[in-house]
Amino acid sequence: MQKEISRREALKLGALGVGAGVLGASNLMAMPLDAKDVKFDEEYDVVIIGSGFGALAAGITSAERGLKVLLVEKMGRLGGNSVINGGIFAVPNNEAQKKEGIKDSNELFLKDCLKAGLQINHTELLETIANRAKDVFALTVKCGAKYVEKLSHAGGHSVPRTYQTANGSGSGIVLPMIEYIEKNPNVVIKKRTKFDDFVLDNDGKVVGISVREGYKFDSKLKDDDRENKSGERKFFKAKRGVVLASGGFCRDIFFRQLQDPRLGKDVDSTNHPGATAGGLIAALNIGACPVQVSWLQYGPWACPDEVGFGVGSMFNVNGSFRYGISVDPRTGKRYMNELADRKTRADAMFKVIDAKKDIYPINFCDSQCIPSLLSSHFEKPLKAGILKEFKTLDELAAHYKIPADELKKTVEKYNAGVKAGKDEFGKPVETTGGIDISKPPFYAERGVPKLHHTMGGVKINTKAQVISINTKKPIPGLYAAGEVTGGTHGASRLGSVAITDCLTFGMIAGENI
Amino acid sequence: MQKEISRREALKLGALGVGAGVLGASNLMAMPLDAKDVKFDEEYDVVIIGSGFGALAAGITSAERGLKVLLVEKMGRLGGNSVINGGIFAVPNNEAQKKEGIKDSNELFLKDCLKAGLQINHTELLETIANRAKDVFALTVKCGAKYVEKLSHAGGHSVPRTYQTANGSGSGIVLPMIEYIEKNPNVVIKKRTKFDDFVLDNDGKVVGISVREGYKFDSKLKDDDRENKSGERKFFKAKRGVVLASGGFCRDIFFRQLQDPRLGKDVDSTNHPGATAGGLIAALNIGACPVQVSWLQYGPWACPDEVGFGVGSMFNVNGSFRYGISVDPRTGKRYMNELADRKTRADAMFKVIDAKKDIYPINFCDSQCIPSLLSSHFEKPLKAGILKEFKTLDELAAHYKIPADELKKTVEKYNAGVKAGKDEFGKPVETTGGIDISKPPFYAERGVPKLHHTMGGVKINTKAQVISINTKKPIPGLYAAGEVTGGTHGASRLGSVAITDCLTFGMIAGENI
Repeated sequence: MQKEISRREALKLGALGVGAGVLGASNLMAMPLDAKDVKFDEEYDVVIIGSGFGALAAGITSAERGLKVLLVEKMGRLGGNSVINGGIFAVPNNEAQKKEGIKDSNELFLKDCLKAGLQINHTELLETIANRAKDVFALTVKCGAKYVEKLSHAGGHSVPRTYQTANGSGSGIVLPMIEYIEKNPNVVIKKRTKFDDFVLDNDGKVVGISVREGYKFDSKLKDDDRENKSGERKFFKAKRGVVLASGGFCRDIFFRQLQDPRLGKDVDSTNHPGATAGGLIAALNIGACPVQVSWLQYGPWACPDEVGFGVGSMFNVNGSFRYGISVDPRTGKRYMNELADRKTRADAMFKVIDAKKDIYPINFCDSQCIPSLLSSHFEKPLKAGILKEFKTLDELAAHYKIPADELKKTVEKYNAGVKAGKDEFGKPVETTGGIDISKPPFYAERGVPKLHHTMGGVKINTKAQVISINTKKPIPGLYAAGEVTGGTHGASRLGSVAITDCLTFGMIAGENI
Repeated sequence: MQKEISRREALKLGALGVGAGVLGASNLMAMPLDAKDVKFDEEYDVVIIGSGFGALAAGITSAERGLKVLLVEKMGRLGGNSVINGGIFAVPNNEAQKKEGIKDSNELFLKDCLKAGLQINHTELLETIANRAKDVFALTVKCGAKYVEKLSHAGGHSVPRTYQTANGSGSGIVLPMIEYIEKNPNVVIKKRTKFDDFVLDNDGKVVGISVREGYKFDSKLKDDDRENKSGERKFFKAKRGVVLASGGFCRDIFFRQLQDPRLGKDVDSTNHPGATAGGLIAALNIGACPVQVSWLQYGPWACPDEVGFGVGSMFNVNGSFRYGISVDPRTGKRYMNELADRKTRADAMFKVIDAKKDIYPINFCDSQCIPSLLSSHFEKPLKAGILKEFKTLDELAAHYKIPADELKKTVEKYNAGVKAGKDEFGKPVETTGGIDISKPPFYAERGVPKLHHTMGGVKINTKAQVISINTKKPIPGLYAAGEVTGGTHGASRLGSVAITDCLTFGMIAGENI
């Protein structure tokens, strides 16, 4: 009983809590506030932090239940990383698979994800996205998203189960969803509105947030979350609760370096500049469980000749890696299965790369696959000068200083493998429809892995409720979805499962809140 | 300015902080308290949480500066995991190396640690332990610790640089340190005293702790930290600060499963039953940075035929792995370098193990190495029936159902490698002094990796100060040392570096507090 009594005493005494830990003159960021001391400026049923896949799915779903919804986005444009992503969307057991005669199952999907995730995925979350993928796919179609008819075979998946947006970008989903949600009179969207702190009531329930309106993200600051003082503070009540969908932290130098000290500011990322850890930290400060936060993923298909995600990534995903090969320029030889999972490929590429000597793998394919590529995935990098066209393999070899004879031997060997349906690195060449590397012109691009996705984040249950590290139960009033959560993908996410993950738990948060 | 004003307002309003997040009826564990509302029962200069290597080094060092010191230990005995560990202690550039003519350097030590740690170690922490290892070794000698004269060559180290305690256990260091510290009139030690919460002042400085005296750890509870209500609450002031040296969380089912869901309650650990995450969580609740918490390490030298660390582990470390081999019983073949780093070995062993069919690797050596083993490392497992003696390889093969011909071929091949100084798996056989597997009797033990060390924890700087995730500066008044910290070891700790790490940062905390 001793403990119980002292708890009540502590309450009566008005315990300061973590706020106190950060009260020092230098920082109150992410300090949770007491509802009884807050005068709310505006009231909503649901407040959603972020405006990417998870946030939009949560917003649409809760608004269509008749709830009054606010979305806050710190940046000047909506969509976070979702709007610049590759627009590939894994849906196990989908309708297009049935038409194409592709056999799939939840078990196979889980097996693929667990293999890439080094078996540490939280399987109840994987099962949830497998079960609900078709529902969120339908949600995007309802909003007006358009997809290419033929399924893609994304790296690490046993079968083609991936839809590609018609415009070859996540914007093909995000923009229709924004247009759709903006028509709903229940929904208010505020850009340049930075989430700072959760507001908690006396029972520890999340009942609102504090933000700064008119905030301007400043990419010149070393640490925008802490240093940027712009905007006017406001308090928004969330009668039903808050959905945290603030994304990952690939652009947060401090937080990512805690997990991997090699990731200094010179390490490029595919993410938009605002992908910092502020939202995640605010959740940790109110006791959200940190899950697998040490696992960061590189996108192996990026290009060192441009900044960020750029225009070259999708050519590698859909062109050179699928229908061509990647070689070490010093030897002219292949060194990996170009359709392996992301971690396997990134690990292999880093062994080839010598940044100091400007040596990067050369990814290339021939003209046969170009008709099957979206024009944006081919013409944009070509126009940008990142993707180069060569009339002969000799010309290609000369340009990248590859031993030409070795390169030609490598191509011959690969082509023989395509013909035989058996590749020396285990690439599933039977899925390329017989396309080898034989019809000039050839198209080549230098490759580099860039920091792409942070696997870890807060622990959620299958209802998208955030679990407390202290009670081991849901933190009342707090939901989360998308990259700010952890566990679904384990050690490494398979390509095209991000959209499935973010949309599913966004929708589930919207259903349950 | 907006933000600054609101901070002050928040202060004035008496913000509730994370306490509020956990105020719900079910839990106040690890709730930080406000100093102005606390009546301290006792006052010290320094309060230390834990009683293992880190805690004892901090206690001795601060007490010898004339400070009044309290150590609190939740269990009924002192020493935590330190007192049951293997007593192997890496000291780069040590005196015994000079005598034995072994060349070593800080650079080589860092290289070895970084290789095992998959290059994500926080190198400033590694450099610190490399620089101070000789000082903490001297500290243990001053306290009365005794070491074997000949250095050990621990797995993953390029050269022998590891001292072994004379009694073959960490108790050979811990018990003399306890005896030493107990003589110091400045020191009070309280057993069965469970740390619950930090007490913070208005500036966010850690100024004390709350505990329960007369607490009794209950290993039958699913979650002792949360469910156990025993003991009487007391408040201890720490005028200079608190040192958190509460150890790792290998026995915390909930917290370890967040990081790897496969680690259910049936997965054994070498740790003592009290190795839970309570101390770490309390620190996270006041804003300590979580570092690399997802990386858990298995000790590959444990035995499935006993519970916990047991008596068989040290035979594998010093006998069978060093002077013998490990084989897959189905094939009679080796499958790894028995002196590789722990992660490499554990990964290889898990591929051999089939727990459902009770198949485990067989580790064995011959009689030649026995004279060089400590009697406790040989006689205890033999007496316990875990280690078995065989007159011939045929007898050994028959007992473990290994194909005898294959086993003999394997031994022949290994012996030829020892003679040639070149092993097929890259084992540094040149360091075994020519001992092969040829002189009966043979000694064999079944092997299994058990959960052994949690690499992650709170971020400290080279002064052992805990860094705030919010201010990115030290949390005033809070220091940490040992397994509760993260970063030193990266993804996987090399054997025998734990003692170096724990003692060094304990000593540094004691110097700086």
